[in-house]
Amino acid sequence: MKQTTNSHITQSLPSDTSFVRDISPDNTVIFRGDGEPKTPTIMLQQLAEFDQEFALEADSYSLGGNVEQLEKKCAEMLGKEAAVFMPTGTLANHLAIRKLCGVKPRAIVQEQSHLYNDSGDCVTRLSNINLIPLAKGSPYFTLKALKAAVEQAEGGRVINPVGAVMIESPVRRQAGKIMPFDEMKAVTDYCRDKGIGSHLDGARLYMMSGATGISPTEYAALFDTVYVSLYKYFGAPFGAILAGTAKFTDGLYHERRMFGGGLASANFAAALALQGIEGFEARFNRAMAHATALFDKINTLDGINVEPFEHGSNIFPLTLRADVNSKCFIKTLEARAVSVSAPDSDNSRRIMLTVNPTILRRDVQYLCCVFEGAIAESLLMS
Amino acid sequence: MKQTTNSHITQSLPSDTSFVRDISPDNTVIFRGDGEPKTPTIMLQQLAEFDQEFALEADSYSLGGNVEQLEKKCAEMLGKEAAVFMPTGTLANHLAIRKLCGVKPRAIVQEQSHLYNDSGDCVTRLSNINLIPLAKGSPYFTLKALKAAVEQAEGGRVINPVGAVMIESPVRRQAGKIMPFDEMKAVTDYCRDKGIGSHLDGARLYMMSGATGISPTEYAALFDTVYVSLYKYFGAPFGAILAGTAKFTDGLYHERRMFGGGLASANFAAALALQGIEGFEARFNRAMAHATALFDKINTLDGINVEPFEHGSNIFPLTLRADVNSKCFIKTLEARAVSVSAPDSDNSRRIMLTVNPTILRRDVQYLCCVFEGAIAESLLMS
Amino acid sequence: MKQTTNSHITQSLPSDTSFVRDISPDNTVIFRGDGEPKTPTIMLQQLAEFDQEFALEADSYSLGGNVEQLEKKCAEMLGKEAAVFMPTGTLANHLAIRKLCGVKPRAIVQEQSHLYNDSGDCVTRLSNINLIPLAKGSPYFTLKALKAAVEQAEGGRVINPVGAVMIESPVRRQAGKIMPFDEMKAVTDYCRDKGIGSHLDGARLYMMSGATGISPTEYAALFDTVYVSLYKYFGAPFGAILAGTAKFTDGLYHERRMFGGGLASANFAAALALQGIEGFEARFNRAMAHATALFDKINTLDGINVEPFEHGSNIFPLTLRADVNSKCFIKTLEARAVSVSAPDSDNSRRIMLTVNPTILRRDVQYLCCVFEGAIAESLLMS
Amino acid sequence: MKQTTNSHITQSLPSDTSFVRDISPDNTVIFRGDGEPKTPTIMLQQLAEFDQEFALEADSYSLGGNVEQLEKKCAEMLGKEAAVFMPTGTLANHLAIRKLCGVKPRAIVQEQSHLYNDSGDCVTRLSNINLIPLAKGSPYFTLKALKAAVEQAEGGRVINPVGAVMIESPVRRQAGKIMPFDEMKAVTDYCRDKGIGSHLDGARLYMMSGATGISPTEYAALFDTVYVSLYKYFGAPFGAILAGTAKFTDGLYHERRMFGGGLASANFAAALALQGIEGFEARFNRAMAHATALFDKINTLDGINVEPFEHGSNIFPLTLRADVNSKCFIKTLEARAVSVSAPDSDNSRRIMLTVNPTILRRDVQYLCCVFEGAIAESLLMS
Repeated sequence: MKQTTNSHITQSLPSDTSFVRDISPDNTVIFRGDGEPKTPTIMLQQLAEFDQEFALEADSYSLGGNVEQLEKKCAEMLGKEAAVFMPTGTLANHLAIRKLCGVKPRAIVQEQSHLYNDSGDCVTRLSNINLIPLAKGSPYFTLKALKAAVEQAEGGRVINPVGAVMIESPVRRQAGKIMPFDEMKAVTDYCRDKGIGSHLDGARLYMMSGATGISPTEYAALFDTVYVSLYKYFGAPFGAILAGTAKFTDGLYHERRMFGGGLASANFAAALALQGIEGFEARFNRAMAHATALFDKINTLDGINVEPFEHGSNIFPLTLRADVNSKCFIKTLEARAVSVSAPDSDNSRRIMLTVNPTILRRDVQYLCCVFEGAIAESLLMS
Repeated sequence: MKQTTNSHITQSLPSDTSFVRDISPDNTVIFRGDGEPKTPTIMLQQLAEFDQEFALEADSYSLGGNVEQLEKKCAEMLGKEAAVFMPTGTLANHLAIRKLCGVKPRAIVQEQSHLYNDSGDCVTRLSNINLIPLAKGSPYFTLKALKAAVEQAEGGRVINPVGAVMIESPVRRQAGKIMPFDEMKAVTDYCRDKGIGSHLDGARLYMMSGATGISPTEYAALFDTVYVSLYKYFGAPFGAILAGTAKFTDGLYHERRMFGGGLASANFAAALALQGIEGFEARFNRAMAHATALFDKINTLDGINVEPFEHGSNIFPLTLRADVNSKCFIKTLEARAVSVSAPDSDNSRRIMLTVNPTILRRDVQYLCCVFEGAIAESLLMS
Repeated sequence: MKQTTNSHITQSLPSDTSFVRDISPDNTVIFRGDGEPKTPTIMLQQLAEFDQEFALEADSYSLGGNVEQLEKKCAEMLGKEAAVFMPTGTLANHLAIRKLCGVKPRAIVQEQSHLYNDSGDCVTRLSNINLIPLAKGSPYFTLKALKAAVEQAEGGRVINPVGAVMIESPVRRQAGKIMPFDEMKAVTDYCRDKGIGSHLDGARLYMMSGATGISPTEYAALFDTVYVSLYKYFGAPFGAILAGTAKFTDGLYHERRMFGGGLASANFAAALALQGIEGFEARFNRAMAHATALFDKINTLDGINVEPFEHGSNIFPLTLRADVNSKCFIKTLEARAVSVSAPDSDNSRRIMLTVNPTILRRDVQYLCCVFEGAIAESLLMS
Repeated sequence: MKQTTNSHITQSLPSDTSFVRDISPDNTVIFRGDGEPKTPTIMLQQLAEFDQEFALEADSYSLGGNVEQLEKKCAEMLGKEAAVFMPTGTLANHLAIRKLCGVKPRAIVQEQSHLYNDSGDCVTRLSNINLIPLAKGSPYFTLKALKAAVEQAEGGRVINPVGAVMIESPVRRQAGKIMPFDEMKAVTDYCRDKGIGSHLDGARLYMMSGATGISPTEYAALFDTVYVSLYKYFGAPFGAILAGTAKFTDGLYHERRMFGGGLASANFAAALALQGIEGFEARFNRAMAHATALFDKINTLDGINVEPFEHGSNIFPLTLRADVNSKCFIKTLEARAVSVSAPDSDNSRRIMLTVNPTILRRDVQYLCCVFEGAIAESLLMS
């Protein structure tokens, strides 16, 4: 059987292996991260281009200049009245919940959310808000669970009104799985009825949108406020956008400064984000289509399988048959300009592929051949 | 069948029903609450007695006088170096966790705990500590769950050290169920090893002790700090005790005052607690033995069953057969100086009996007859 | 001259000195504190009387019963829509400022206020509000100073809106001096115009009213919220009242409980306050008139002088001439049922007299004789 | 007289006025700000140079790479064991006080400090620390005032221990005036004795050092922690350094991230700071010497005077005689490549000159001529 596969590879790959030599950072497909990785040098070049084409314009403590241009662009892109630049997503999520809550002491979040696990309990420690974690170990909670939590909060001996509900989707700690749109809508409708603020941690909103075909604005429309990352895939060195009504964002820069997030000058980050945003949505959607076509082809091969998660976004588990040496497989891919992560720590035959625009650097036919060849070279002698 | 039962009653009860007339608050058995309910007038009489026997001694903003006597008495009773009077259990639990945590931002509690549900999120809102809820819907968490939570807290992108673990036992919201001693010991040993403070919300410590036969000091020895209620069964109008090391309690009255809990004069509460504590442990243990004997007898009757909960304390579910009219049953008990709660809201055939020293007001034989009679009179015609 | 004075005494005092023997706690005039001191035993008697006359009625965690009666009585007495019982004045002031501020981060107070100095920075530490201290070392601030502080708060690089202004009057740390009514009115009018909440720390409101003749309701009318002490002169063992609009007090007991101030039963304190309030205002006003008459008489004597402070309330500095032995003077007064404080720590010839209803226990003629005699017996040999 | 002066100018200036045409941003002397202003385009060029010479090295959420290089450089430069990059000075000051205080609730600051006025009350609102303002309206407080404040804090009814003292020097709101070194030393010695942490808001430490000749390390040695700005004069677009012991800085990046200040990538700011720091101290000291020479010369002219403030740093008030038209004066300077601020809002004859390295762009002789000429052309007709 190994024989057969090998001969098949030999046929489908170019007869010479010259293609192997043609490898550079610019034509490598990287199944890690949500955007195209950039070196500082490339960022500098892009800034110089931006300066020539549009002009770098100074801001004053993150007000005005390119920062303001970015804020307007993002508000429009998300279908919100206004947006405010934030130095980090941590601060964006925090200020959203802080302001939506006002004097109400509780906010509801996913137990698996970044904010609940990886933000130093900032909302609790600095804004005295009790984050109630739902859906332990799962990507999302249901409307039913939310209702129960709200009732429990308001039914204790001392009333603890819920001021905000936050939904992170895709969920980083859950392999990018998402909350289905209908559940999201049910939850945010309920919030609106109850006078509870709703916030979307849409750090990777464009990945979710690329997977479901539902536009970012449709998602954003469900929520009072939305956070989107600027550095994960839009190419800024850092930064985040927090969008909402004009009333919500009014004066929010005072809070940003109070937290120590009013950078004296943020136009480099803003300019790079402005550049990166241009055309990103379409490019990412093409990348997802590209990936689907590739995975369909891969699934016709023996020894390898790539299936989407239920409610997945741009992360796809690739599973190798027991007789494939995964180390050899990864190394072979790498040698042919396809970079993937190490296998899961608890399952050496499973590798998570994260789809991003780098997939567009090679055509499906090429990539399929590379995978096929890597399998062939990694079959264990039996 | 009703006939038979009735004649049986007739035999076992005194031939005349004069006993029914002999009903007063003082000889009624009340299967509700953990102590003997007292009217304000009775409290006044007790204070007058205390004043005559021991003298009411003034305190200055809850320092000195009877308050200090009480603090010493309670420290000794719990086997701790020192104790501080608190106006409420809410404040006792809060200050324990606040001080044990110091600058560490997380404390772990039961999801069903009073502190997590019924204290207005005080620890979070006023002391900026994130209470991590474990064991959703259950009386207690295991060491394994605790370890996982500690690891999750310390393994996030930003470290969130856990400063304290609190155990409420018995758990009010879980029908007085308790955490088993061995699990408690495993948990507190782990805390000690990890340098995590441990606090016992022992509002009803004496109920747990009465059920398990493990003394209050044995429980208290496991924990850095212990809170015990003064009004639930010791007979004070309000108040709580927070006990721990001398180092822990040193200067704690400053915090008490800062929270607005430094009552100008608290000697009435202290004096009533001092009186109530005297002999309480033995009396409560007798009440539990009395109850056990009674329930054994009751369980020989038809149509009624009283079983302890697994890991229960002084609350016992009484179950009526489907053909017993529970309203009539309760009314009949009431007429014979036995007062019970209404049936469970979701199960009209189940009534929770809370055992307390009022059970000692009547002998087992009498009480069993009353229950038997009540069943007989409440059988539905078939 | 000493001769003369002595003979004058001999004439004006009863020829026998039997009056000296007739001394008990009940007929001693005590120039310390604002009310009539009570032993625990007397409190018990009063409670028994209250129980007989009006009935002690239980409350449930400080809701209902005598507590509710007291709240209604106090609201009416202060001309406010509603009032809430608080265990301490510390909590009353804190919750007023906390609620008036909402999400605004600053409140303005006197630098000499009790809240700024003697409450453990509770408002800052627990409610995250910056207390801006005005009028360093003085009893009160002016409208001008307040305006400057508000402008400074709102003119910084980051806006810090002022949510509340608190005025303590009389000021405990300033010998009971008060803010003049006109200044108070100017300040509270300004607050109303600016949408800033105003709170009166009127712990000793009745002392201020007794000194100025302006009624408590006139003072209270200037402010959104008012706190009055229940134990300093109304005779409760502890407790405070916080009064304001019905909207303000609505649900405030949740906050009280959250802070650990929801005493399980507070009817003893409420009942004693209800008793003490009855007729207090008139009695205190009589005491002030009594004191004025006495001090006028005293000021005709040699070697002693009692003058009101500018903007004083019920504290009057008594000054002894250099040749009067103040220790002997105090001792002689004490022997004749007049109790005064020790001299000022920095001026051994000055003694602060605090006027309260105990002054009514003796007539002016008697008291003047006692002071006169004490001077005579305390003249130093030259 | 105007005639005379004009002819004098004509003599001392180059006979042709060609020099007027030779004006560019690069040879303009700017008496505003503490460093050399840079356009985004210049920053880009500098980054490209840095990349070529030293290589831009990526950091991971502000850890490692150029950021780490900068931290090491700054620690060394300030004579401290370690330093942490912060996105803003607001956060640097905040985290210093937060960590120095631990669980102690008070910190003492100047009433005129940036932190007290222009940082949104961050320390109070987010870290629950009461900032006690001293020296109202003045540049600095004395040891005596500090002692009094510490005693007041610890002598109230509830102890409020002081955890930290912060000194801002130079003081931005006080025209760059400084606290004299001896007073600073007395204050920090006292803090050390009392176990109170001390922090220097040295945003403009190098300006103070340039004025007093006392080195930055000598200043830094007095304090536990020091903050220095990276963008005010070192040329970074934003950023700050917080330096202290290795123990102090250990793990501080967790707090930075918790506040939302863990920028995903900060190497551009770090690289520009590394460049700007190189040789800055010497250059700034030269600038100060240059300024002194210039002002001495200017003071020999009629109609104009430049005097240092008592305890001033790099800001010098220039005063025009009443018959000089200040608008014309400023305009004339501008036309000759010397840029100054508008006159004081409350004194149209006073202009604040801020000395920075741009003064080195022109020699003293040239500059003196320019000032002389500007006076001459601005004399009012009498």
